[in-house]
Amino acid sequence: MSAKIRIAILGASGYTGAELVRLLARHPNADMVALTADRRAGNTLGAVFPHLAALTLPPLLAIEAVDFSAVDFVFCALPHGTTQEVIAALPATVKVADLSADFRLEDVATYAQWYGHEHRAPTLQQEAVYGLTELARAAVAKARLVACPGCYPTSAQLPLVPLLEAGAIAADEIIIDSKSGVSGAGRAAKEGSLFCEVTEGIHAYAIASHRHAPEIEQGLSRAAGRPVLINFTPHLMPMSRGIFSTLYVRLGNGVSVADLRAILVKRYAGEPFVKVLPDGVVPQTRHVRGSNLCLIGVFADRLPGRAILCSVIDNLIKGASGQAIQNFNVMMGLPETTALEQFPLFP
Amino acid sequence: MSAKIRIAILGASGYTGAELVRLLARHPNADMVALTADRRAGNTLGAVFPHLAALTLPPLLAIEAVDFSAVDFVFCALPHGTTQEVIAALPATVKVADLSADFRLEDVATYAQWYGHEHRAPTLQQEAVYGLTELARAAVAKARLVACPGCYPTSAQLPLVPLLEAGAIAADEIIIDSKSGVSGAGRAAKEGSLFCEVTEGIHAYAIASHRHAPEIEQGLSRAAGRPVLINFTPHLMPMSRGIFSTLYVRLGNGVSVADLRAILVKRYAGEPFVKVLPDGVVPQTRHVRGSNLCLIGVFADRLPGRAILCSVIDNLIKGASGQAIQNFNVMMGLPETTALEQFPLFP
Amino acid sequence: MSAKIRIAILGASGYTGAELVRLLARHPNADMVALTADRRAGNTLGAVFPHLAALTLPPLLAIEAVDFSAVDFVFCALPHGTTQEVIAALPATVKVADLSADFRLEDVATYAQWYGHEHRAPTLQQEAVYGLTELARAAVAKARLVACPGCYPTSAQLPLVPLLEAGAIAADEIIIDSKSGVSGAGRAAKEGSLFCEVTEGIHAYAIASHRHAPEIEQGLSRAAGRPVLINFTPHLMPMSRGIFSTLYVRLGNGVSVADLRAILVKRYAGEPFVKVLPDGVVPQTRHVRGSNLCLIGVFADRLPGRAILCSVIDNLIKGASGQAIQNFNVMMGLPETTALEQFPLFP
Amino acid sequence: MSAKIRIAILGASGYTGAELVRLLARHPNADMVALTADRRAGNTLGAVFPHLAALTLPPLLAIEAVDFSAVDFVFCALPHGTTQEVIAALPATVKVADLSADFRLEDVATYAQWYGHEHRAPTLQQEAVYGLTELARAAVAKARLVACPGCYPTSAQLPLVPLLEAGAIAADEIIIDSKSGVSGAGRAAKEGSLFCEVTEGIHAYAIASHRHAPEIEQGLSRAAGRPVLINFTPHLMPMSRGIFSTLYVRLGNGVSVADLRAILVKRYAGEPFVKVLPDGVVPQTRHVRGSNLCLIGVFADRLPGRAILCSVIDNLIKGASGQAIQNFNVMMGLPETTALEQFPLFP
Repeated sequence: MSAKIRIAILGASGYTGAELVRLLARHPNADMVALTADRRAGNTLGAVFPHLAALTLPPLLAIEAVDFSAVDFVFCALPHGTTQEVIAALPATVKVADLSADFRLEDVATYAQWYGHEHRAPTLQQEAVYGLTELARAAVAKARLVACPGCYPTSAQLPLVPLLEAGAIAADEIIIDSKSGVSGAGRAAKEGSLFCEVTEGIHAYAIASHRHAPEIEQGLSRAAGRPVLINFTPHLMPMSRGIFSTLYVRLGNGVSVADLRAILVKRYAGEPFVKVLPDGVVPQTRHVRGSNLCLIGVFADRLPGRAILCSVIDNLIKGASGQAIQNFNVMMGLPETTALEQFPLFP
Repeated sequence: MSAKIRIAILGASGYTGAELVRLLARHPNADMVALTADRRAGNTLGAVFPHLAALTLPPLLAIEAVDFSAVDFVFCALPHGTTQEVIAALPATVKVADLSADFRLEDVATYAQWYGHEHRAPTLQQEAVYGLTELARAAVAKARLVACPGCYPTSAQLPLVPLLEAGAIAADEIIIDSKSGVSGAGRAAKEGSLFCEVTEGIHAYAIASHRHAPEIEQGLSRAAGRPVLINFTPHLMPMSRGIFSTLYVRLGNGVSVADLRAILVKRYAGEPFVKVLPDGVVPQTRHVRGSNLCLIGVFADRLPGRAILCSVIDNLIKGASGQAIQNFNVMMGLPETTALEQFPLFP
Repeated sequence: MSAKIRIAILGASGYTGAELVRLLARHPNADMVALTADRRAGNTLGAVFPHLAALTLPPLLAIEAVDFSAVDFVFCALPHGTTQEVIAALPATVKVADLSADFRLEDVATYAQWYGHEHRAPTLQQEAVYGLTELARAAVAKARLVACPGCYPTSAQLPLVPLLEAGAIAADEIIIDSKSGVSGAGRAAKEGSLFCEVTEGIHAYAIASHRHAPEIEQGLSRAAGRPVLINFTPHLMPMSRGIFSTLYVRLGNGVSVADLRAILVKRYAGEPFVKVLPDGVVPQTRHVRGSNLCLIGVFADRLPGRAILCSVIDNLIKGASGQAIQNFNVMMGLPETTALEQFPLFP
Repeated sequence: MSAKIRIAILGASGYTGAELVRLLARHPNADMVALTADRRAGNTLGAVFPHLAALTLPPLLAIEAVDFSAVDFVFCALPHGTTQEVIAALPATVKVADLSADFRLEDVATYAQWYGHEHRAPTLQQEAVYGLTELARAAVAKARLVACPGCYPTSAQLPLVPLLEAGAIAADEIIIDSKSGVSGAGRAAKEGSLFCEVTEGIHAYAIASHRHAPEIEQGLSRAAGRPVLINFTPHLMPMSRGIFSTLYVRLGNGVSVADLRAILVKRYAGEPFVKVLPDGVVPQTRHVRGSNLCLIGVFADRLPGRAILCSVIDNLIKGASGQAIQNFNVMMGLPETTALEQFPLFP
């Protein structure tokens, strides 16, 4: 019987950190040996997240206090911009799944443009694998450092990449209208995330300027074989978890909506977490809440020659912590669904 | 001192009926002399809507029990398909604002196609004026029967019609992604409107098949001077009131985003209820809740040659009962804002 | 290796039915061989509950269509009043966990008084065991028919029974102020359960007349050794899952709040699902959502000689389906926590 | 025609400040000449509260920048503990309605005990009138400085004070279980007020230690003619506006529940904002949302000799800004309902 994998979670006091703990606590191969949370160092995780108080876990530490020589795998759930130097300083023997945006953009110039500072670990960037698992499984399996995709990019790329690879949709005017729950903004105390500011309403934000746009474009450009610009319009709405992306696309010449469906059905046949719904069935975010699932619907548009795709994920799971564990499983040669088999919680 | 206008509200036990009562109760020229609610006939309105229990009102009647010879004006808030015969049977001296879809489509063949039965008052249809007030004020002023626009069509046409009339946007690939609160589905006890089925989630519905699509197309076709088809994709989300429409358009040749804004600013200058927001400001549904306002934002797209418009309304007010009263004011020669001056309720 | 237990779930199209399926789908000893849903017979469960569409399950049947000779265990999740005859007709070899109220009241006269009709299986009632697992484990283990407690009674009795048994609190003026989510009302399409009628508000209901009052009194009377009447005031609030019960009690002579805590800590030491929180920590419903946990807090009152207890459960799990499976495990000699080890889902 | 009253609102960037502005904007006798918001000084109110952007208002100032010699009346909506010195420094000719807790407690020693510092304007405290309008109308009419009651104390005292004055209920074991929306916590960016921390759940807080307890006790003691201690247990739940207080009381000797109702009906006969509901009707917070109403229900308990009262208010209106304007009207000799006649907004 082999020993368990010794895991450190950096940034355990955020929502994605808590989800990592919750899921890994039922992972038969995982042993959480270190949890960090700089501002909450010294506390138990149960003090920060009472729903996990029943767990026996090491106390929260500052990052500096972790002995990484006794760690096999690190999940980084730190804020954007703080992760590059942390990961660069890790022992080379440690594998890493990074949930921040710090290693998602291959082109460090693009990174600098959108994130407002030079990349702090450009060499490491070259080594990082962009880990949208279903689309990069082989590369993930060999990687030491996996950059886990953003939540919006996961919901957009899973339906679009296979269609662009097949040349089945036009690449030049893709419109991505996404609706997100509030947990995507994290647990930071910001006026815009207050209950009274979010409940009973909706609004778009970061129109034409959201940082997930270049990340989506990177993936779609690779799929299309040429540079792709997109419209990406995120909206904030009153739910804790979930992303609903409505994708408006133009069909390629001679391509039908049924063709789109067939391409996706074939591509995701056998995938445990990505499901193409039957004709006429619209996915709902509440039907994936608490799971690692992505559901995709394909619909004819009223406008001739166009189609509509809908995709839903739980932003904290398939859009963050669940996909990170999926990558962990692949990187460590474990069954890919381990610890990710929970059904959605509805109602 | 002139006598008050004697008003009947047909369908007072629904949400739009309740809003009519709430607003008209503070209207200095209105005297609600008859309220109908077939299934609740014999009850007080306060039994059906406790928030209005303080009002002194006539009891709920069956429609047959109303003496329309003592009525000057009728607001119809009946379900679709039930209104045509009711209105046709009214005395010719009675003016009518109809909140249903029964007289919105000028072409009775289109009506039959989308609503599943022949129009039952085609002659009356020819007389009806489509009452999107800001865009049809003169015709509304002379009308005896005004068909009040649907909630989604109001949110879509107010930003789009002036732009199409000016030839500033392309008419062939307009995409309307709308997000609606639940009150749009009315007070009927349906599984899909239950709290547990709606809270903490979102989904699209009636993709490419919603009955508001031909209504929007009718208005946009008139504005463009030629037949227009649209993409209209409504979504149901957890809020009681509000519609947020995100409109994706292609700019006409030589037209800039600043031009779009200028056209709308000019068109709605002086309008009390339609406001074009400053550059960079995104409207929020919660900032119009409880008011007759429509807020419009105009944004450059990341895709060259394209723009994004956002519009918000309270679906029960500007999208239904408020606009009906606005039309009533215009039809009766009263100041247009009478009884509609409440500010939004936030938070 | 022994064969799996063949299970039928009667009433699989309601929320508690769906939770039974969700949890049993991960139970290593359970084989769901029959699901019934009279009005939805012929459908798949996935058509009724899309979040469970990934499961391979038998189609929904009418009860009459089930071959109970090939069933070992029945979970009854039928509406109150419909279950007595169904269970009475089952083969004697079949064990039963009933989630309805039909067998909860030992005194059939009390049943008739509160439920409006004579009990239809009074002999069977004598055999039924009231299955609040932590308080009746031995009897449950030997039972053929277990009546699973109501959601409110679970939240009230777990804190109060040990205190009454110890004579630590007065039995004569216990006040139970409970706040419930909407799923407790089931999936029936009722006006009072509509999103717009529930969101952004709260109200008490069934004041001094809720059917869970005699059920709670039955348990408290047994614990106190004499007849106990209670105040039980339920409130409906906008959340899908959860019950928060605030319990106001008078301390027995010479008893301190610390004594109350000590009694509960001792009673529930080692219990996997009932946790007494540290001094000063208030439980929250959202910290048990999706789990079989009951959290209890104990607090001094500002009024001398009194105390306040707070308890929280997920009404669909510990208050219904989870406790039913807990009883199933006990009845079948399986580890009690099997299939119930999910952590709460937060946020 | 007399000149309008020149009004300053101190603390206009909070929720109660915004409600003052919203309501006073429709007050025919009010002229808002100065708005302060220290951290937001220099902004327009519309930048802070977009739902009020249509108003023409003076810009936000620091308090120091206000010329109080040109002000007739001040509404103070500042945080607790910051108001005493501000008000003490005002010209003696200026009347004041203070919405903070700074002048609510007559006994400055009690103030110091609960608020953690000595009272900074004890002389002014002696002059202040506690302005629960319906219970102190005559004193309010003559006051220069009115301390507006807290939200919870308003909901508790309106039903309880008349009953204690009449000796109809026991004074020694009153239990007040209150459920509040989130706006009561203000607009400050706190983790505990985040959407994800509040939605889909409920919890008690400040058990036996909330600062509104001594305020309620002050009012009840005066009514009872002797010192009264209470149980006050507030709960935070997912709604923006509203307080529901469930009050558990013991009847006086020979007093019936019908007597309680009769006392309240008589006391509040003719009151425009306080309504005692008919037998069997339970108030709901959503039926007062957006209004200055308080609804009260009276119910027999299942426990003999006891009763249950339920009261609901909109915490931002009758519990704060509306009652402050009601006091303003009384202080200035204006019709008491001026600017407060809006009906509740439902749904």
